[in-house]
Amino acid sequence: GEMAEAAPADLSGLERVRQELVDPPFAPEHEQVASGPPKIVEIEMVTHERLMTIDEDTGASIWALTYNGSVPGPLIIVHQDDYVELTLRNPVESAMEHNIDFHASTGALGGGGLTHIYPGEETVLRWKATKTGCFTYHCAPGGAMIPYHVCHGMNGAIMVLPRDGLKDAEGNPLRYDSIAYFGEQDYYLPRDENGDFKLYDTAGDDYTDSLEAMATLVPTHQVFNGAVGALTGANALKAQVGQTVLMVHNSCNVDSRPHLIGGHGNFVWETSFTDPPLTGVETWFVRGGCAAAAMYTFEQPGVYAYVNHNLIIAALKGATAHFVVEGPWDNDLMEQVVAPRPFEG
Amino acid sequence: GEMAEAAPADLSGLERVRQELVDPPFAPEHEQVASGPPKIVEIEMVTHERLMTIDEDTGASIWALTYNGSVPGPLIIVHQDDYVELTLRNPVESAMEHNIDFHASTGALGGGGLTHIYPGEETVLRWKATKTGCFTYHCAPGGAMIPYHVCHGMNGAIMVLPRDGLKDAEGNPLRYDSIAYFGEQDYYLPRDENGDFKLYDTAGDDYTDSLEAMATLVPTHQVFNGAVGALTGANALKAQVGQTVLMVHNSCNVDSRPHLIGGHGNFVWETSFTDPPLTGVETWFVRGGCAAAAMYTFEQPGVYAYVNHNLIIAALKGATAHFVVEGPWDNDLMEQVVAPRPFEG
Amino acid sequence: GEMAEAAPADLSGLERVRQELVDPPFAPEHEQVASGPPKIVEIEMVTHERLMTIDEDTGASIWALTYNGSVPGPLIIVHQDDYVELTLRNPVESAMEHNIDFHASTGALGGGGLTHIYPGEETVLRWKATKTGCFTYHCAPGGAMIPYHVCHGMNGAIMVLPRDGLKDAEGNPLRYDSIAYFGEQDYYLPRDENGDFKLYDTAGDDYTDSLEAMATLVPTHQVFNGAVGALTGANALKAQVGQTVLMVHNSCNVDSRPHLIGGHGNFVWETSFTDPPLTGVETWFVRGGCAAAAMYTFEQPGVYAYVNHNLIIAALKGATAHFVVEGPWDNDLMEQVVAPRPFEG
Ligand SMILES: [Cu+2]
Ligand SMILES: [Cu+2]
Ligand SMILES: [Cu+2]
Ligand SMILES: [Cu+2]
Ligand SMILES: [Cu+2]
Ligand SMILES: [Cu+2]
Ligand SMILES: [Mg+2]
Ligand SMILES: [Mg+2]
Ligand SMILES: [Mg+2]
Ligand SMILES: [Mg+2]
Ligand SMILES: [Mg+2]
Ligand SMILES: [Mg+2]
Ligand SMILES: [Mg+2]
Ligand SMILES: [Mg+2]
Ligand SMILES: [Mg+2]
Repeated sequence: GEMAEAAPADLSGLERVRQELVDPPFAPEHEQVASGPPKIVEIEMVTHERLMTIDEDTGASIWALTYNGSVPGPLIIVHQDDYVELTLRNPVESAMEHNIDFHASTGALGGGGLTHIYPGEETVLRWKATKTGCFTYHCAPGGAMIPYHVCHGMNGAIMVLPRDGLKDAEGNPLRYDSIAYFGEQDYYLPRDENGDFKLYDTAGDDYTDSLEAMATLVPTHQVFNGAVGALTGANALKAQVGQTVLMVHNSCNVDSRPHLIGGHGNFVWETSFTDPPLTGVETWFVRGGCAAAAMYTFEQPGVYAYVNHNLIIAALKGATAHFVVEGPWDNDLMEQVVAPRPFEG
Repeated sequence: GEMAEAAPADLSGLERVRQELVDPPFAPEHEQVASGPPKIVEIEMVTHERLMTIDEDTGASIWALTYNGSVPGPLIIVHQDDYVELTLRNPVESAMEHNIDFHASTGALGGGGLTHIYPGEETVLRWKATKTGCFTYHCAPGGAMIPYHVCHGMNGAIMVLPRDGLKDAEGNPLRYDSIAYFGEQDYYLPRDENGDFKLYDTAGDDYTDSLEAMATLVPTHQVFNGAVGALTGANALKAQVGQTVLMVHNSCNVDSRPHLIGGHGNFVWETSFTDPPLTGVETWFVRGGCAAAAMYTFEQPGVYAYVNHNLIIAALKGATAHFVVEGPWDNDLMEQVVAPRPFEG
Repeated sequence: GEMAEAAPADLSGLERVRQELVDPPFAPEHEQVASGPPKIVEIEMVTHERLMTIDEDTGASIWALTYNGSVPGPLIIVHQDDYVELTLRNPVESAMEHNIDFHASTGALGGGGLTHIYPGEETVLRWKATKTGCFTYHCAPGGAMIPYHVCHGMNGAIMVLPRDGLKDAEGNPLRYDSIAYFGEQDYYLPRDENGDFKLYDTAGDDYTDSLEAMATLVPTHQVFNGAVGALTGANALKAQVGQTVLMVHNSCNVDSRPHLIGGHGNFVWETSFTDPPLTGVETWFVRGGCAAAAMYTFEQPGVYAYVNHNLIIAALKGATAHFVVEGPWDNDLMEQVVAPRPFEG
């Protein structure tokens, strides 16, 4: 066929580097401005299936399908025109076939058509990052298995930076001090006749029940980074007044409307890095099947909640994370002129 | 803590003005272009809890939680770099604690962390309007109480105008003759075993039932300005051909897609006033947790329906308002060449 | 009234042309750049009511309400400042009243107020296409009949091109080789006590049941071009590597998030043609009640799935179409370096 006859790509002149992927909400080591010509960036991912508690309060659990064990899968960062070379392995212990579709790539269903691996198999896919922006990747084994795998956690994001880094509409450089990487995950947990969440013995056992639950289009849980409270309390994100955070938000299936309570999106890229960022945004939009980025420089100390601003989803389904920010308070920006006190009606 | 040590802000040189808030769909008196330097704009709001019929046809009612008695709360209008100084009072007759989170502000959860008032308490909060655009404000007492209060009507909008007013992408001034202020409200009314809407004795009595109804993510009602038909019939908005209306649309919780039937969004600011407006839009988008603005100059007389263009929501849930426009008809724009008549197949 | 007193429009100097409408997913013959001054473009549509199977697997069927027999109605294409002159006929065999509301037009509820026709009636409406972009049109008989007709298929799109054609943000011309016209249709099929989809004898018989199903806001089916699989298999769209397709996507009622698996939206007009297109988009957004356009030039051969990237909707509700693209594979863009093979853990 057409692929068999294709001339091999000669990439012998390109430097190879290995990117060590890390667990969310963190980002791998990377340059904001590329220091040399395009490289081949080697990464590895393993399709772990694991029983995961997604809400400690109720014990609600799911046989999560993951890349590298986390929901979302790890954040990958490259620059435009770099080549991503992924080694993907499916452990022999797995119950299911997996693959990967990179929205950032071109052809073969985003690589999904070339990476179907059964338990005990591996494959290597290389693709060129021609488009800049944040992009979702996800498992897509075909048919109803596509939403089944995606709604069991099997998705993540890659950020493809312009070689000279991010810029505002006037071309001024925009730099960040840290990345916070959020994966918004909708789960559809089947219930038993008493309304309790069902437990299953093995990955895949919930398939028929899950399809029925998914067909309602109403998630039982919608969380950041795998579980209710994964990024609050002891796991809250940290920052300092004056620091700039780039919030990368992956939502592979459902629309989201991220809002930083007490802050803003100073610069927001809802679609790609080739279009100028939106500015001064109260609540931005992540089209279902997208990753997006928002940049904010903290001006006040305190706790900031980062939420899906359908507040039912934030408070009842789980889509809430916290930043704890230290530094001096600025009374010019906000002052409690009169603390709560009794008054005479 | 950090706030206790903060230097006081010296605002002694600034003029103080009082803004009299008015009921929706109307806007308070204001300048489109600021006539002087930044001011301190004093406003007052009272957290009224009141039993409200939201659909006359069925008698469906809710113990609405409100700012100043209306759903949405009153529209506030200031200019960039003005200071908003709010006195917020919770009547002693109230059943519940309230506070306020301004998306337009910076820090302390948008002021939510500084304004928790119990029945019989008042507080004063001042914040600087550094960002321009239309922004939601809402009650956010914490946890599940956040969507509970928001979905009982406790939200509204502030418009922060650029000091030199609105402009198009080329910098030409854009002026309006009037403002129409829409608050889109999703309600989740609990039903009894017969499927009828339940009535409750006091604000807060429906808490447990409401959380269950909210978790479906399917509103029983989704209306403009508090109730089905609040802005139709005798309450329809009025305009003249040639007049320009600025439609400010607040939707604190759910996405909306406003459409003016028979008209357009000539200039639409979905996100902020620092980005150029979209132009010539058929149906715009209000991310849940946002206020947005759209400008239109009427070219034809007649009735215009302003709807959420999920037409099920418009027609079955209540999200429909009307403009009645007077003036001369223009046959060049549209002409009924042949009125309906029988034809021979 | 105001309309009766209006001066007649003198269009006697304008050329009249007839546009032959064709069935989706195809586009009528048209120029991308207008070759002369504005014209009067005559079109005809008939409001056919027909029993349509929307899912062969289950036999699920609906009495579809259509323009010209297809769901969506035919694509109309004109240039800015052309006049659209529509003859609309309702066959005497019909069960219901119909009309048409063009979002692209100005006044009289988009023409809906001037075009109510009962079975056996015809009418002629002329309107000027002052706004550029892709716009929805739909039946809007009033009240709950509006979503009822729309959710039974009675909607389509018109594309109003700038007279000098499409352009990128820098003003460079953008041209396409073909148009693929997608109508995304949400259906809400009533079920009987066994959970099976109900069959009805005549158009309109499902009215009461349908309103109940619609009120859930959860479609039983959400498909492209009328039925599950209407644009896959033997009906897949065709293209060649190097060809540019303009994907026109109509979604009259529900939000959509189109994604081309393995490709991108190189240029995307979500709102109008007066705003510069978004570029390099992974997944774009069609506000419910809109038509939008996305342009892509194929770079690789193979199958591309065009989906609503709520993947539950794509895979379980039906919103999937296919492009089959021929041409040479490019190993520089993507290469299967190691085909799936066993590995030793
Ligand atoms: Cu998988
Ligand atoms: Cu995808
Ligand atoms: Cu409250
Ligand atoms: Cu908020
Ligand atoms: Cu109709
Ligand atoms: Cu419409
Ligand atoms: Mg890990
Ligand atoms: Mg591409
Ligand atoms: Mg993206
Ligand atoms: Mg009042
Ligand atoms: Mg700020
Ligand atoms: Mg806003
Ligand atoms: Mg036909
Ligand atoms: Mg108009
Ligand atoms: Mg459009």
